[in-house]
Amino acid sequence: MKFNNKFHLNGDNIHIGENVKIGDNTVIYDNTLIDDGTIIANDCIIGEPSKDYYYNEKYSNTTTIIGKDCLIRSHAIIYNGNTIGDKVSTGHRIMLREGNSIGEGSRIGNYSELHGNVKTGKYASIHSNVCIVENSIIGNFVWISPGTILTNDFALPSNNKRSPIIGDYTAIAVNCVILPGIEIGVNCLIGASTVVTNDIPDFSVCIGSPGRVVSDIRDFLTNGVNHYPWPYNFDKGMPWEGLDFSVWQESLEHD
Amino acid sequence: MKFNNKFHLNGDNIHIGENVKIGDNTVIYDNTLIDDGTIIANDCIIGEPSKDYYYNEKYSNTTTIIGKDCLIRSHAIIYNGNTIGDKVSTGHRIMLREGNSIGEGSRIGNYSELHGNVKTGKYASIHSNVCIVENSIIGNFVWISPGTILTNDFALPSNNKRSPIIGDYTAIAVNCVILPGIEIGVNCLIGASTVVTNDIPDFSVCIGSPGRVVSDIRDFLTNGVNHYPWPYNFDKGMPWEGLDFSVWQESLEHD
Amino acid sequence: MKFNNKFHLNGDNIHIGENVKIGDNTVIYDNTLIDDGTIIANDCIIGEPSKDYYYNEKYSNTTTIIGKDCLIRSHAIIYNGNTIGDKVSTGHRIMLREGNSIGEGSRIGNYSELHGNVKTGKYASIHSNVCIVENSIIGNFVWISPGTILTNDFALPSNNKRSPIIGDYTAIAVNCVILPGIEIGVNCLIGASTVVTNDIPDFSVCIGSPGRVVSDIRDFLTNGVNHYPWPYNFDKGMPWEGLDFSVWQESLEHD
Repeated sequence: MKFNNKFHLNGDNIHIGENVKIGDNTVIYDNTLIDDGTIIANDCIIGEPSKDYYYNEKYSNTTTIIGKDCLIRSHAIIYNGNTIGDKVSTGHRIMLREGNSIGEGSRIGNYSELHGNVKTGKYASIHSNVCIVENSIIGNFVWISPGTILTNDFALPSNNKRSPIIGDYTAIAVNCVILPGIEIGVNCLIGASTVVTNDIPDFSVCIGSPGRVVSDIRDFLTNGVNHYPWPYNFDKGMPWEGLDFSVWQESLEHD
Repeated sequence: MKFNNKFHLNGDNIHIGENVKIGDNTVIYDNTLIDDGTIIANDCIIGEPSKDYYYNEKYSNTTTIIGKDCLIRSHAIIYNGNTIGDKVSTGHRIMLREGNSIGEGSRIGNYSELHGNVKTGKYASIHSNVCIVENSIIGNFVWISPGTILTNDFALPSNNKRSPIIGDYTAIAVNCVILPGIEIGVNCLIGASTVVTNDIPDFSVCIGSPGRVVSDIRDFLTNGVNHYPWPYNFDKGMPWEGLDFSVWQESLEHD
Repeated sequence: MKFNNKFHLNGDNIHIGENVKIGDNTVIYDNTLIDDGTIIANDCIIGEPSKDYYYNEKYSNTTTIIGKDCLIRSHAIIYNGNTIGDKVSTGHRIMLREGNSIGEGSRIGNYSELHGNVKTGKYASIHSNVCIVENSIIGNFVWISPGTILTNDFALPSNNKRSPIIGDYTAIAVNCVILPGIEIGVNCLIGASTVVTNDIPDFSVCIGSPGRVVSDIRDFLTNGVNHYPWPYNFDKGMPWEGLDFSVWQESLEHD
């Protein structure tokens, strides 16, 4: 129904792989590679030109790469210069400014925006309506919940900027703010509506505004159960799904 | 101007009632019923197929019903399986995932998203940019203000999920977070940026992070006046508009 | 690429200036003036009709004015009755309800919405995903960061409404809430996730929930440096760019 070959290829050097589906009204700009098996739904813009395009006749897009077996839902705007890994899926109306690198298997929810040059690891789960400032670094298997904002300006407005770094396996609940330049370690849990104002060590539970570390995550009980580190107790959509996390980790080390 | 019969019916079993207007570029998928007098503006998607559609040739939409005299503003995405009551109105760019049931007279604001199987009562007013997790239950005449998020995961990420329940006539101010499984009673007021961490009894005023009950709403003064329960003092757009709320309630009981 | 003359002029009394570019699929309704040198990207709606349009055959748009040398990025919805100054630029998918007045050089970020009759001064920088209630007054050179919400209802829901006023040069960080009727003075800094519950004097630093004034901004150090008032230390995109702010101010006074 959605795939009537009514999409538009606007420019040169557009490579479409095997078994790719592209939805109606989607526009793909020049210097874009879409790899095998990927689905781009309707009304998307892939390789959206940068601002200079509007004013400079000699403007040329940098390369946009969408990996294999991705699902880009409708109305996404993905600027030129993004590199999207294999098996990435997105919600509707996402906004990726220039130069992000999205790791394999990651997810980006409805209305979320990455402001550019953001790097995510593998299987990062960025939910709806998340705002991630340019140059942020998001680890592997990180969860970022709806309404959370990562910031980078130490003195609004200033040129004194540094972006947050979020460690592997860390989960950030809804409506949090991560202040400029903050580094959050691996395997942390940041509670709902927390404002993270200091660097957070590995394996910390941090809550409140300003956020304070209240527990080691390995001692933290939810409903009387020690759930964390979560990979041992949750596998849905993860590469260790149906396996034991420890076994999966060992298999990686032996690769 | 908007209604040039340039909409698209994509599939079978689409029933359009009397005096329905459908805007240009709107796409309506199979198994959709749009009842009399409803207006669907331009660039909407009604009956958006579920993810399985992209991968399964035998995919079939479940039924989507839009009631009478609704106004669905432009760029809405309404997945298949929603049931929208009569006289519902929406803002632009709303997102309804599968299986929500929206009560008569309810409103859903710009950019708001219901993640699926959400049930709202009658005349629920969900403002802009609200994020409501799947399976939430929203009562009659509930107000939810911009930026508020309802959550359901007790240990991010986990399979231990339960969604909030919001009682009739309760008003939730901007930027609140309702934690998983929380039940908020009837006739409550939740202040701006509150994080509701415990069940809230009927007629409570709850503020802060973590939220604490600070007053019975019947004793709560705003600008020196006791406004609550609000239905006695506010009727705009409500079914008791121009009547006395008590009289209206009695008329219901005698029906 | 984007400009193939596939836009739509829907109605009478549409004036397009010199050197205007209008993107594909953009719709411009009646009674709209677009001044010289402005670029309106693809898929925008300019002069979106008010609700009455759907029900009243005699409906007529009020005038929409877009000034000179603006850049309106794709998928903007700008209702009829807006007046946009010269050199305004916007992100994607902004939403301007009726009757806003946007000062010269201002910026409005992706997904942000102004609910109507909002007045901004010159060079107001409203970032992504900001929600500004109707009738708010935003000064010159004001910064409002992502996720911030301005409110106007003293007793949700009520008819007792008054909108905030934000003074010149004030910077509001991410995820703040400004309560109804609050007046924030000039040259203030409102920290991340602050809930502003009282009027704030000029030159204040206000943080927390509820917000409290913790410093005079002229005594406030960020990373050991006194950055504020910021115009003396930041000029990117400002009319005093490359000049000294004091010199620029004096030049204005001598005009």
